[in-house]
Amino acid sequence: MHKIYSLMLHSVNSPDELKAVPQSRLPELATEIRCFLIENIAKTGGHLAPNLGIVELTLALHRTYSTPKDKIIWDVGHQAYVHKILTGRKHLFSTLRQKDGIAGFPKIKESPHDAFGAGHASTSLSAALGMATARDLKGEDFKVVAVIGDGSLTGGMAFEALNQIGYLQKKMVIILNDNKMSIDNNVGALAKYTQRITRTEKYRRVKEKIDQLIKRHKDKELRQLKGDLKSLTTPGIVFEKLGISYIGPIDGHKLTDIESALKQANQINGPVLIHAKTTKGKGLSYAEEHADKYHGVGPFVIESGKAPKKTAIITYTEAFAESLIELAKQDKRIVAITAAMPSGTGLSKFKEVFPKRCFDVGIAEQHAVTFAAGLATQGLRPVVAIYSTFLQRAFDQIIHDVAIQKLPIIFAIDRAGLVGEDGPTHHGVFDLSYLRLIPNMVVSAPKDESELRDLLSTATKHDGPFAIRYPRGAALGIPTPHTPQLIPIGQAQILQEGDDINLIAIGNTVHLAEQAHTLLKDQGISATVINTRFVKPLDPKIIEQAKLRPSLIIEENTQIGGLTSALQEHSITNLQSLALADRFIEHGNVNLLRKEQGISLENIMLKTKQLLQTSSISTTN
Amino acid sequence: MHKIYSLMLHSVNSPDELKAVPQSRLPELATEIRCFLIENIAKTGGHLAPNLGIVELTLALHRTYSTPKDKIIWDVGHQAYVHKILTGRKHLFSTLRQKDGIAGFPKIKESPHDAFGAGHASTSLSAALGMATARDLKGEDFKVVAVIGDGSLTGGMAFEALNQIGYLQKKMVIILNDNKMSIDNNVGALAKYTQRITRTEKYRRVKEKIDQLIKRHKDKELRQLKGDLKSLTTPGIVFEKLGISYIGPIDGHKLTDIESALKQANQINGPVLIHAKTTKGKGLSYAEEHADKYHGVGPFVIESGKAPKKTAIITYTEAFAESLIELAKQDKRIVAITAAMPSGTGLSKFKEVFPKRCFDVGIAEQHAVTFAAGLATQGLRPVVAIYSTFLQRAFDQIIHDVAIQKLPIIFAIDRAGLVGEDGPTHHGVFDLSYLRLIPNMVVSAPKDESELRDLLSTATKHDGPFAIRYPRGAALGIPTPHTPQLIPIGQAQILQEGDDINLIAIGNTVHLAEQAHTLLKDQGISATVINTRFVKPLDPKIIEQAKLRPSLIIEENTQIGGLTSALQEHSITNLQSLALADRFIEHGNVNLLRKEQGISLENIMLKTKQLLQTSSISTTN
Repeated sequence: MHKIYSLMLHSVNSPDELKAVPQSRLPELATEIRCFLIENIAKTGGHLAPNLGIVELTLALHRTYSTPKDKIIWDVGHQAYVHKILTGRKHLFSTLRQKDGIAGFPKIKESPHDAFGAGHASTSLSAALGMATARDLKGEDFKVVAVIGDGSLTGGMAFEALNQIGYLQKKMVIILNDNKMSIDNNVGALAKYTQRITRTEKYRRVKEKIDQLIKRHKDKELRQLKGDLKSLTTPGIVFEKLGISYIGPIDGHKLTDIESALKQANQINGPVLIHAKTTKGKGLSYAEEHADKYHGVGPFVIESGKAPKKTAIITYTEAFAESLIELAKQDKRIVAITAAMPSGTGLSKFKEVFPKRCFDVGIAEQHAVTFAAGLATQGLRPVVAIYSTFLQRAFDQIIHDVAIQKLPIIFAIDRAGLVGEDGPTHHGVFDLSYLRLIPNMVVSAPKDESELRDLLSTATKHDGPFAIRYPRGAALGIPTPHTPQLIPIGQAQILQEGDDINLIAIGNTVHLAEQAHTLLKDQGISATVINTRFVKPLDPKIIEQAKLRPSLIIEENTQIGGLTSALQEHSITNLQSLALADRFIEHGNVNLLRKEQGISLENIMLKTKQLLQTSSISTTN
Repeated sequence: MHKIYSLMLHSVNSPDELKAVPQSRLPELATEIRCFLIENIAKTGGHLAPNLGIVELTLALHRTYSTPKDKIIWDVGHQAYVHKILTGRKHLFSTLRQKDGIAGFPKIKESPHDAFGAGHASTSLSAALGMATARDLKGEDFKVVAVIGDGSLTGGMAFEALNQIGYLQKKMVIILNDNKMSIDNNVGALAKYTQRITRTEKYRRVKEKIDQLIKRHKDKELRQLKGDLKSLTTPGIVFEKLGISYIGPIDGHKLTDIESALKQANQINGPVLIHAKTTKGKGLSYAEEHADKYHGVGPFVIESGKAPKKTAIITYTEAFAESLIELAKQDKRIVAITAAMPSGTGLSKFKEVFPKRCFDVGIAEQHAVTFAAGLATQGLRPVVAIYSTFLQRAFDQIIHDVAIQKLPIIFAIDRAGLVGEDGPTHHGVFDLSYLRLIPNMVVSAPKDESELRDLLSTATKHDGPFAIRYPRGAALGIPTPHTPQLIPIGQAQILQEGDDINLIAIGNTVHLAEQAHTLLKDQGISATVINTRFVKPLDPKIIEQAKLRPSLIIEENTQIGGLTSALQEHSITNLQSLALADRFIEHGNVNLLRKEQGISLENIMLKTKQLLQTSSISTTN
């Protein structure tokens, strides 16, 4: 299968060149694109299964429409690789998701063909409606197409948009890319509904029956009845009832079917939804079978689908799942909730042990949090496991439904801090700040997997909201003692005592501070290392220590509103901070990004010495 | 109409006493409750029209269910007055929404009959599903009923909940209180759909036709067809297709109809939606006719419906609307968006002048922001007018769709700071903090209506997101010059120069600082008064000033993350702050609340003197 794409794909570098390809050769081109995707993603890692599933749809879209004049808006955007290949970025695929390379998501700045940036789900319909509305206001003439998966459609804001789309009646096309999946299997009533839509079920049976009756009775009114029935019972009636024309379901891998559906849609002077059924991972057997596992991947071996051997170190996600299972065995009040991320958050393991105590609500972070609030009012202890950046969606619910009512809900916040290749939409770098400003919240971060376990156990005993944030990827690989320890809420830990400087760290930066301590010691500098553990409440002991000697704060969170601010509030002089800059941080290898942001051992050493120098000068003065 | 409620209502103080009232006397009781509501709200102010519309529904609910064992969850909660009257709080209605009095919304702490607190829309279904799920997990036996308006149903999180409700199939009842309104007229395709549902329309016509055909042809298959048709075309099919049984529409003012619908619903072992059509403001002619105006009111004269004479001073809302209209006349790029608050934000006036450039998306803050982002990509300048506390719903969209892409969107944030009687769910006291932590944002607040005009004008010229927050209620009544002035972004204004102390204020606290300046001058204390204007970017001039003399910061925002933090980040010694405490602030007269929180002239005077005293001691030392 290697290199066959060079046969044809090399001459297709733009939508215009694609339009010149004869219809008969398109299936071949689709195969070449799949090979190209597999070969490249095997090297760089990236979103595999979603892109394999959308090859034909993307080809049809770029043959029908003319970007950048026409606007294609990709929901979430992890399925836009084929679009990138066809819009002049094929030669950049070796740099995919790498620092200064092309992004894994659409990006306005990257190409005029990317009409709207993405990363989080369910935004495309709103953006598309905005563009269609602007077009009509300005009297311009272009087409607007949103491509949204059935998973993204469960997000509330997609429904909010449908509601206005049906109302405003702007001309636009919605492609529902229905692969029965979000990242994991899709859930919810809407998914059940869309999966049940077929032209061949009951509707057809009833229509046939009427046809027979018409033949039998030759009654004009019966013939009219057939028309009435159609208007009442077309497939996609939920969309039709909202004022959105429905075409489908069609086979999303049959190019001619898609193109003819698009042609039909373009005739309609209002919003149209085309329901295309596709297979996630299409064309690669193991990706089709395990589309969740091959949704987003690291580099892998094409023949087997296996990743290069991983280190044996447990991830924070695994540590969280194991600890939660252990705790739930003792505490029947514990239930777990996630929003379409059972594998990513580790809850799929929890679900194996406690199927009835685990809830995947779909892409619906707002509902997830308030659903948990409802559970909590009845004496349960819900653990809401959502990635840091996605939890932003539930900011109001955390304030309004959880914190005001001081309900005991545990937020297990995975992917906190920099996440690397997924870039600015996915870095979890605001959570310490947006959670700390909420009254009644406990906001914590463990220094390692053992402390994660202790904090989780502590949280289950606390009568109020409790957030625990931890990073993506491998933990430290340290042994975890059998019984989790309760940590007094708000208590920091002094790991090393020293006279010259305080290194005040939290979460994954504590380990760096400890390493720095050792190196500094060799150079005759004696550092106090503080594991903050809680940014809220903040241990007064830290303030005391900070008044004794110069302090360097190290946190993988924006410099505004997090640990740095928590200390600055106490009028401490001689305080320096290594935190993330107040700007959006691009994608790239997480260690490179950390280095660039100064969250590194080298920089701690450097800043410590600078701080000691300035302090000695100011003392001398 | 006065006092007739004492005839019967005085003996109904609990759900049990309500159940003892004979069916025949209920209409009379309903009338008495309406009189009670009108008389009380005329004195205290409060939510009038929503409660007049829900009298019969509430009576039926409390006759059918037994709270607190059964759970009634009120969406938004502004329609829970009748529920409060019937659950032991009638005698407290003279204290409604006043400090230390009963709240205008349900509150767990206020009564065991209040199953879940509210204030923001669209949360009830999630909370109710949580309770029903907890019930089944714990093997308990109680009923769960959510009462949601058609307006709240447009909020995305309500749909997220419906999606899981249809999926989990827990036994619960949803009352759709359909009054065709949210606060203003309801909008959107779903509203159109629910309003079109009637038992008498097409469906009935088709069924009748089949009946005639059956009579004519006496065909068994035709009879079957009638059954098939029913299953395909019941009213409420959108809900049915999502797995939620539909009953209705019923007349929500006919007690017997409601009770029989509830009985029917209780037989169903899964989720049921009862679609009740009601009239907002029912029973009070002017409130029925102008339900938006009488949604929430201050004290009024019962006979006329008129409020006691208002001061002639313009409100910030009016100033915003007038300025926006003026700007939009010059700048065709300006469009305006609101989320179900056209009157409250002043956009209804804008809409009168520019009907095509104004969009009310319904209760859908997430969509509002990303819809605006779509408009902005096409060169327009959207102004998103949403109350401070409701904008929390769009926190992720502001980050993900606006700030990352640095799109030029203006956030006109009304009701910032303390709002008074609506309490903790409505105080807009987090915005300076949650907006300041977002990269690329400009965050500002005007000191008066003239500066609001200048900031708005400045914002329309800025190529990135720009937030302007301003308080509820009357502005300062100062003249606004004809042409709005552009303010250099990030530039503070030194209003008074003095040697002893800095008073650093923002927004509505600037006026207080100026008053304090005058009083201090009389006492021989010379104060510099700084109008910060922008918390982001912060003017370096303020830091310089703060290094010269002691500073007192005054802001009506939480003490965490706002102006106070912005200054603390610069290692300034001798800094004190008057900001809101890190706790949820209850309801009550806004001036009382400000006083309690220390945002008052007296306290500025006191704190200034304390600060000067400490400074002189520390200088002496």
